Amino acid sequence: MRNTAMILVNCADRKGLVATVAEFVFRHNGNILHTDEHTDEESKRFLMRLEFDPSGLDIGLDEFAASFAPVAENIGMTWRLARSDQRPKMAILVSKYDHCLVDLLHRHRSGELRCDIPVIISNHPDTKPIADFYGIPFFVVTVTKDTKVEAEQKQIALIRDHDCDFVVLARYMQVLSNDFVATFPHRIINIHHSFLPAFIGAKPYHQAFERGVKLIGATSHYVTAVLDDGPIIEQDVVRISHRNSVEDLIQKGRDLEKVVLSRAVRWHVENRVLLYGNKTVVFD
Amino acid sequence: MRNTAMILVNCADRKGLVATVAEFVFRHNGNILHTDEHTDEESKRFLMRLEFDPSGLDIGLDEFAASFAPVAENIGMTWRLARSDQRPKMAILVSKYDHCLVDLLHRHRSGELRCDIPVIISNHPDTKPIADFYGIPFFVVTVTKDTKVEAEQKQIALIRDHDCDFVVLARYMQVLSNDFVATFPHRIINIHHSFLPAFIGAKPYHQAFERGVKLIGATSHYVTAVLDDGPIIEQDVVRISHRNSVEDLIQKGRDLEKVVLSRAVRWHVENRVLLYGNKTVVFD
Amino acid sequence: MRNTAMILVNCADRKGLVATVAEFVFRHNGNILHTDEHTDEESKRFLMRLEFDPSGLDIGLDEFAASFAPVAENIGMTWRLARSDQRPKMAILVSKYDHCLVDLLHRHRSGELRCDIPVIISNHPDTKPIADFYGIPFFVVTVTKDTKVEAEQKQIALIRDHDCDFVVLARYMQVLSNDFVATFPHRIINIHHSFLPAFIGAKPYHQAFERGVKLIGATSHYVTAVLDDGPIIEQDVVRISHRNSVEDLIQKGRDLEKVVLSRAVRWHVENRVLLYGNKTVVFD
Amino acid sequence: MRNTAMILVNCADRKGLVATVAEFVFRHNGNILHTDEHTDEESKRFLMRLEFDPSGLDIGLDEFAASFAPVAENIGMTWRLARSDQRPKMAILVSKYDHCLVDLLHRHRSGELRCDIPVIISNHPDTKPIADFYGIPFFVVTVTKDTKVEAEQKQIALIRDHDCDFVVLARYMQVLSNDFVATFPHRIINIHHSFLPAFIGAKPYHQAFERGVKLIGATSHYVTAVLDDGPIIEQDVVRISHRNSVEDLIQKGRDLEKVVLSRAVRWHVENRVLLYGNKTVVFD
Repeated sequence: MRNTAMILVNCADRKGLVATVAEFVFRHNGNILHTDEHTDEESKRFLMRLEFDPSGLDIGLDEFAASFAPVAENIGMTWRLARSDQRPKMAILVSKYDHCLVDLLHRHRSGELRCDIPVIISNHPDTKPIADFYGIPFFVVTVTKDTKVEAEQKQIALIRDHDCDFVVLARYMQVLSNDFVATFPHRIINIHHSFLPAFIGAKPYHQAFERGVKLIGATSHYVTAVLDDGPIIEQDVVRISHRNSVEDLIQKGRDLEKVVLSRAVRWHVENRVLLYGNKTVVFD
Repeated sequence: MRNTAMILVNCADRKGLVATVAEFVFRHNGNILHTDEHTDEESKRFLMRLEFDPSGLDIGLDEFAASFAPVAENIGMTWRLARSDQRPKMAILVSKYDHCLVDLLHRHRSGELRCDIPVIISNHPDTKPIADFYGIPFFVVTVTKDTKVEAEQKQIALIRDHDCDFVVLARYMQVLSNDFVATFPHRIINIHHSFLPAFIGAKPYHQAFERGVKLIGATSHYVTAVLDDGPIIEQDVVRISHRNSVEDLIQKGRDLEKVVLSRAVRWHVENRVLLYGNKTVVFD
Repeated sequence: MRNTAMILVNCADRKGLVATVAEFVFRHNGNILHTDEHTDEESKRFLMRLEFDPSGLDIGLDEFAASFAPVAENIGMTWRLARSDQRPKMAILVSKYDHCLVDLLHRHRSGELRCDIPVIISNHPDTKPIADFYGIPFFVVTVTKDTKVEAEQKQIALIRDHDCDFVVLARYMQVLSNDFVATFPHRIINIHHSFLPAFIGAKPYHQAFERGVKLIGATSHYVTAVLDDGPIIEQDVVRISHRNSVEDLIQKGRDLEKVVLSRAVRWHVENRVLLYGNKTVVFD
Repeated sequence: MRNTAMILVNCADRKGLVATVAEFVFRHNGNILHTDEHTDEESKRFLMRLEFDPSGLDIGLDEFAASFAPVAENIGMTWRLARSDQRPKMAILVSKYDHCLVDLLHRHRSGELRCDIPVIISNHPDTKPIADFYGIPFFVVTVTKDTKVEAEQKQIALIRDHDCDFVVLARYMQVLSNDFVATFPHRIINIHHSFLPAFIGAKPYHQAFERGVKLIGATSHYVTAVLDDGPIIEQDVVRISHRNSVEDLIQKGRDLEKVVLSRAVRWHVENRVLLYGNKTVVFD
């Protein structure tokens, strides 16, 4: 896989944004590989992901960014430069259910996820052998009602000590405090085992079974202060029938959860997810 | 298509139910074509649909039913006999959106729906040419806030005068009163343009757009006194993206609504839908 | 729906293509609404669809095109300008199966397809009432083994007399001659009732039933000289089971065929389909 | 999970089959949990899976089977009794790609697959650490053009020494000889990485990319003497687009392969797959 660079834009819409970026890359002899852009009609917000091959650039990428800054400022463009050779660092929080953890670690080892995983934190020791097998440092931070504040401080310290850029909740069974969430704004990815906004909160498969739905779903989203309400990154569903017990729903749901979470993580890692309001654009 | 008969069972579970029905059909020289059964573990309810070819029966179907009644009573079995040659009569209620109506009428004419359609009732005259084209009697019953009670009485009278067995709301835009619903218990099929229980009530596509979901859905269900809460017969979803406006959702949703409603109607007509609690079994 | 203009590019890849187009639109005060581009790594082919709002342009669209021509030529860019206010003209060829025809005509009337339909041609009179209902001129051109050449000449004459830009085969059951195909290169859209390249040729549902597949499909593609081998525009599938007879497959398939063909037609009409080699890019 | 017993019937259709089985189970005080049956109209073949709770039986399961034999013979019924407490033994053959192997082993450990895995055989040592982690005996049998016959003899010996009931090819990259296949008739399950019968043979993702399809698939089937032609157990597809390279297809395909293979294995283990001609019935 070759290395690429990305200009990511998220600002108020105005004429000339595409032209300005494309012209700048061209002038410095970059080769545009993909351009994706979206204008939200309601909020008049402009979002763009322009990926280019920097190998032929007439200047270094740092200098490129420094030169682009005044050009962008001139037309009021908020942007950042991302580079595929700078791998983001992902912390994983997990409880006892291990299917999402195994899935992420196997994908990571197979090269599917271009990130590093410096640390796994769990409130139970059960998944330590898996972490050991994949050679990832594993820490147990026990969480009880009384020690939650303290436990979260330990978790935050571990995430920071390992220089992590974002956090993935791989079926982590504790609700995070608003303080925790605010520490990593739009940098925590959760997998909820329902087709949100249906079946918010606890035991969604039981809720789905009770309601008699014909499809069950899974939703990966950024965590915000409101439970299960953050910007949705990816969702998918699978058909069920009256023959299926709650246990069958849980089993079928595991396959959904793994795929939906891994897609969301991959897109986040590849800088394909941009935020506006409480929504995401996914430039896949 | 050959004619078949169906024994439909819905009762408390106990041993010997399958054997009793199968043995009775066999003894009278019926040939079983399909057997489907389901036992709900929670409520211990037993549901069965046994379809057989009555052409070789040693007695007529009426006599068959009369002879089976005491056998069934003996083991406390609630059942009914349905016959594919007795086509149920469907009334359609519709407003201005015509896509579900056209879809149902075309399927009906092509032979896909084994029912009769004696009457279409609308609160607007717009779809009359379509009804005329397919040769179905069409009545306008205007509904206003002040005339709703009276209007519903007219609708009920029309449905009864035309001997209808069940009612399909083909994107009928008025909420029915509890009195109307109680007149046709579990005999009104609605199509709601969301993946219930997400986005109950008005303007679900707008709600879905606002929430930023990645899939939209449609749900066909029996109407009960609680809005959008009746037993679900069928659901399906389609993928959307940030590129899609509310209008795109509405357009994509139309294709879902047509397919989901027509499946539900077909299954109802073919006696494939059995009820238990607020859920359905679909023996498809 | 507002009117837009599109610059469609299909040429060998080189640096500066995006910048050149974006800069030109910006310089003339056009507002870019969507940009989609794709570079095929193998053939080094560059394809782009740039849609812009021409309402604020400092020159007319004709002048705009005339001014852009030398700019494009300068960097070896093959392009064309399309306008949403110039509705393409679609001829429909149909036989006896009417589900795709009814579907296209209803979508057209509801405003979903931004094209005109000047003529429907069939080798059978059966669907004339439908054409009449929607007010579209309908011609019967009988096709027999002996009169095929002559019949195709009549069809071509009708298509030309009605100024049609492209032809849709809405389950037209005759194989077109190479001469016919060559008359409308990449301008004939077919719906084949299988997931191509599986089950090429006649009776694909029977083939699928015989093979025991668990999903059936439909494929919409541009017609080329080789049967069922042209560039694929859209495909979809639906699940079947051992319970389904060939007739069930045909019935389920009809729903697929309608949706897949209508998507392909819509994308073609909206200039979203670009060709390279025997493949399509769909900028949806 | 409670233990159950299953009567599996596969014979020429005739009247009284359901009644005979249901009556026999009832007479011995078994409680029927599920009945599924299918009659193939073409071959007049009858297939049934009747699952019952044997806990209340008035005789042991062995005696039950012995008593049923003459009853079944009397009406020409071919059948067998299966028991959920007798776990089948599965051998896995694998090469270098490890995603299906990891998936099967993780599902096995989590209790999703009610079978034993006495042995994994590979033509490469790469996946040994995974086998070790899950505690499954692992053997390398190198296969070259010259040693293929000998290698297959070793594989067969290993499978037999470990008392395996069936063999799963978890992306095993060697074509098996007809002799090998004949040794385990309808007892070898393969995963082919295409939507069969499209893209038979080598490099199906490359073939799919070349053809420009809009969906890719995976197919799990029993292996027969003809390559990729055996009875299909399960298939599924996922959408792709022009943006996807062959590498993307391979990555997306991995998720399909895992899910499709694991479903087929699970259904086989649970005695849900019955064969007739070159097709399967899946009683799921």
